[in-house]
Amino acid sequence: MTLLDEGAKGVYVIAVTPFTEDGALDLPSADRMVDFYLEKGATGLTVLGMMGEAPKLTADESRSFVRRVLARVNGRVPVVAGVSAAGFAAMAELSESVMGDGAAGVMVAPPATLRTDDQIVSYYDMVARTLGPKTPFVLQDFPLATNVQIAPSVILRIVEAQPSCVMLKHEDWPGLAKIAALRAASDKGARRISILAGNGGLFLPEELSRGADGAMTGFAYPEMMVDVWKAHAAGQVERAHDLFDAYLPLARYEQQPGHGLAIRKYLLAKRGAIASGALRKPGSTLSGADIADIERLVARQTRRLQEIN
Amino acid sequence: MTLLDEGAKGVYVIAVTPFTEDGALDLPSADRMVDFYLEKGATGLTVLGMMGEAPKLTADESRSFVRRVLARVNGRVPVVAGVSAAGFAAMAELSESVMGDGAAGVMVAPPATLRTDDQIVSYYDMVARTLGPKTPFVLQDFPLATNVQIAPSVILRIVEAQPSCVMLKHEDWPGLAKIAALRAASDKGARRISILAGNGGLFLPEELSRGADGAMTGFAYPEMMVDVWKAHAAGQVERAHDLFDAYLPLARYEQQPGHGLAIRKYLLAKRGAIASGALRKPGSTLSGADIADIERLVARQTRRLQEIN
Amino acid sequence: MTLLDEGAKGVYVIAVTPFTEDGALDLPSADRMVDFYLEKGATGLTVLGMMGEAPKLTADESRSFVRRVLARVNGRVPVVAGVSAAGFAAMAELSESVMGDGAAGVMVAPPATLRTDDQIVSYYDMVARTLGPKTPFVLQDFPLATNVQIAPSVILRIVEAQPSCVMLKHEDWPGLAKIAALRAASDKGARRISILAGNGGLFLPEELSRGADGAMTGFAYPEMMVDVWKAHAAGQVERAHDLFDAYLPLARYEQQPGHGLAIRKYLLAKRGAIASGALRKPGSTLSGADIADIERLVARQTRRLQEIN
Amino acid sequence: MTLLDEGAKGVYVIAVTPFTEDGALDLPSADRMVDFYLEKGATGLTVLGMMGEAPKLTADESRSFVRRVLARVNGRVPVVAGVSAAGFAAMAELSESVMGDGAAGVMVAPPATLRTDDQIVSYYDMVARTLGPKTPFVLQDFPLATNVQIAPSVILRIVEAQPSCVMLKHEDWPGLAKIAALRAASDKGARRISILAGNGGLFLPEELSRGADGAMTGFAYPEMMVDVWKAHAAGQVERAHDLFDAYLPLARYEQQPGHGLAIRKYLLAKRGAIASGALRKPGSTLSGADIADIERLVARQTRRLQEIN
Repeated sequence: MTLLDEGAKGVYVIAVTPFTEDGALDLPSADRMVDFYLEKGATGLTVLGMMGEAPKLTADESRSFVRRVLARVNGRVPVVAGVSAAGFAAMAELSESVMGDGAAGVMVAPPATLRTDDQIVSYYDMVARTLGPKTPFVLQDFPLATNVQIAPSVILRIVEAQPSCVMLKHEDWPGLAKIAALRAASDKGARRISILAGNGGLFLPEELSRGADGAMTGFAYPEMMVDVWKAHAAGQVERAHDLFDAYLPLARYEQQPGHGLAIRKYLLAKRGAIASGALRKPGSTLSGADIADIERLVARQTRRLQEIN
Repeated sequence: MTLLDEGAKGVYVIAVTPFTEDGALDLPSADRMVDFYLEKGATGLTVLGMMGEAPKLTADESRSFVRRVLARVNGRVPVVAGVSAAGFAAMAELSESVMGDGAAGVMVAPPATLRTDDQIVSYYDMVARTLGPKTPFVLQDFPLATNVQIAPSVILRIVEAQPSCVMLKHEDWPGLAKIAALRAASDKGARRISILAGNGGLFLPEELSRGADGAMTGFAYPEMMVDVWKAHAAGQVERAHDLFDAYLPLARYEQQPGHGLAIRKYLLAKRGAIASGALRKPGSTLSGADIADIERLVARQTRRLQEIN
Repeated sequence: MTLLDEGAKGVYVIAVTPFTEDGALDLPSADRMVDFYLEKGATGLTVLGMMGEAPKLTADESRSFVRRVLARVNGRVPVVAGVSAAGFAAMAELSESVMGDGAAGVMVAPPATLRTDDQIVSYYDMVARTLGPKTPFVLQDFPLATNVQIAPSVILRIVEAQPSCVMLKHEDWPGLAKIAALRAASDKGARRISILAGNGGLFLPEELSRGADGAMTGFAYPEMMVDVWKAHAAGQVERAHDLFDAYLPLARYEQQPGHGLAIRKYLLAKRGAIASGALRKPGSTLSGADIADIERLVARQTRRLQEIN
Repeated sequence: MTLLDEGAKGVYVIAVTPFTEDGALDLPSADRMVDFYLEKGATGLTVLGMMGEAPKLTADESRSFVRRVLARVNGRVPVVAGVSAAGFAAMAELSESVMGDGAAGVMVAPPATLRTDDQIVSYYDMVARTLGPKTPFVLQDFPLATNVQIAPSVILRIVEAQPSCVMLKHEDWPGLAKIAALRAASDKGARRISILAGNGGLFLPEELSRGADGAMTGFAYPEMMVDVWKAHAAGQVERAHDLFDAYLPLARYEQQPGHGLAIRKYLLAKRGAIASGALRKPGSTLSGADIADIERLVARQTRRLQEIN
């Protein structure tokens, strides 16, 4: 299997974890979901991310799910697995499992207890030792969820100290200045790593303009991210915005903290990507009014896409 | 002066506080800004809100600024003043000042230390005693900023216990279910208070559908909120969405935490509403890339509005 | 095995998890440690608590360690296992394992995301369903660590709704009023559950006076807690304070957040309870000055105990 | 008036703010309290600290209270005033007032929003500019209350950049290693500033051993801190511990978060230092059981002091 490296670009879709209506892991839907994401143009997949309900899985379930996804992908695109854990022993165990099964790399977010610059740098030093030099890792910078703020200078210290850190999942909302600062540093000689933007894609056109290499996030219409990225790469910036704007009302609605995942899974089920939109408990459920909102937004999105295509 | 009551509706714009380039309070711009907001259709104004840089003012400056705004408004629309303070003595002092000068009511957000339901209810009991029965107040429910989560049942307890609580500034992003729960409760006999939506207007169409009476938030194009509210009130829901969608890309860009206020003030200065877009220190400043983003979004917004009008 | 019930009292020592110098789980030391705690008078043991480095263990290690402890205890005292987890699937898995191996009950702390009263009550409803009606559980109320504040009225709602909630590990520092409120409620008819005090025993005499049934916490000299509890139970309150005061300087020193566990393990190793005082990484280490402090405090404690005995 | 400088040492008592039973500022008690603290050996006073209920005062009250204290002290010892504020304009206003009235310096804690090293350094750069070069300031490092963790290297950066930073109020519980690191740095050439220990004095003997120059904290028996400091300075370390241990049970009881101030004021009123132990609302009140605890601890403390003297 090819390993993740600094040249990664495009759209790594944050995959959901499909469950049946009664909360069991739905492995057949994992197959279908993989096919769906790849049909829509994903250039990579990320599993067990924050929107992947990873903490709701047992250690065995996590390993089984990743194994199933990897088997279905079968090397067509690189797969990154989230291995953030409360302790390094569990992180090592999961990382060894997924890399042994063919993952291209792993992703680690900082624990909420980190505060000072040195604490963050030290943490990723232990992460790199835990994973070993042969496992490339993605630094997930998501202050809204982790409550850890990582200055650009700290990211650069980690990049310098840890050759196995090859990608930043950029999710400091929207942190456009952070992308610019990191790119300015690599122009001056710092190792240039891949930066994929998160935040549900809500700032994707601007993030690409500042130097992001693509997106690593979730949205029930991953083709939006693919098409925006392609238009942007082709120099068609206004076209990228036109596409983005057409999807924005729904993308915004799907980004409701604590509720957005139910919306995303509803849409994925509606689109046939998974059998059920159910979240494993605890998880929010959609009201009739929510569904009415969603259906209106989908209808409007469909019309708008027809207008601009 | 007419006092705020439960029947309030429409768009209460959260006003910025204008400063000169060197950080002095710019009272002449306060006049101009008032005229601008009223020309754009504001049905009320809110000063000293979280986006009003209130904590950067001395007690004297706060009183002077509110006095100037009230004089310029001259009773044309109700004015609400934020009086959140670390202690009740400062809250009483500011509240007495602004109500004496003609404010229609005041707004109070909960301090970050509150956790349990009873703590929140007790806090607003002390707020109501501090303000006195003749001062109507707005409960600001903004968990993302305050870190205090107020359940619908707790809001209803406060509404029942405090007759002077006449409005909810709803900012539990987006908390559509919360609006619906409160409206269901008033259908069953709870006192119905005004609910104005915040969150930069990013969920305004859906919030209106769930029962919000309008918006209380900021955006450099307040006419968006006014027009969406009017269209919605006229039963033209798709039209409301069309208008909303045209402004959404810029409204989204203006909602960047910690950076959005600089964008808003830049736009207000550009539109002639204030003399300078400067924030009092500490405050973020715009890079050239930020300004390029903004100008592009404004140009696109102008084009899109022409298409739909 | 006898199950934990509301009548539990005495001293449940929060056991450390012994590691070798190179970070491996040290199961032979687990045996020695069990013998040590029981010789010192422990009436119960609690494993995998917050001071037990539980998050540093893999799921397999957690199960192995609890199994070893249970085998060594061999029914002499009840053993409670911490099963707090980020998700219910992992909680169920660990709970089934430890109860199957003979634990008397399990302990669950609330996740940091809980805020409102209803959220907390709902969480423990899901906990009780996850564990099943035959598994007694301890509610761990430790706001300093969890950032979740649980009002006495909320504890009473959980006690009423969940018959399997049989004990409160009281760690709302020091929350003497909370103990009093809960006891007043049980005097008026609420189900009376066991309350064991935490906080390193630093408020033990006062907590016993307010109605605590003993302690569930750690200290390298568990005989302090046992002796204080016995003296108090015998009505010798001043004697209880005399004993407590003799140990207080060291107990205080051992309660340094983030550093105390290294001190505790150093002392346990020094006393022969475990082979090594090492923490699994990441964990703090003792400086020469720390050790000098400890040795001085131990010498002073020894002298003072001689004076009062 | 002599200004605070790096050579400051001894015991700066954190003064309470006295109120009458109905919550009015009690300026006559401010006089009595000053006399009390000075009689007990205070080498300095600190007003408007976190335990001084500063946020409950209006801006005018704050200025009046400090003015009264300064008049009564009349230059006998240096007085430091807390000027932490949500904004720099209010900080400047209060600082100018108190320095003009004869304060020796001011104290500033970091706002809870600071996270990265650079943010903290920048904040204190703005603090130093706001205060001006002639106003010495104390850096208050109190992570438990502020949620801001300041690494030793960051303190050293501030010390280097800001000549007006002359003292650290050390309250990183207990952070003995931090004191040692700072002293090691000044041994190697960094400017040596005064370090006074906080935390209610609960680690005073150990903090002095690591290099603290004294204490800046509150306790209803400030003579404990004075006597421990003097014994330590005289090389009588065991004697320092003997004295400390005699007061420790009560000092511990007075350190209950959110409740300790009511205990401290009760004791100060009992000792005649202030007329009433009342806190301005909101503030906790003592139950009968609390008072019984306190009285027992005072009686035991009195006996123990007789034994060792």
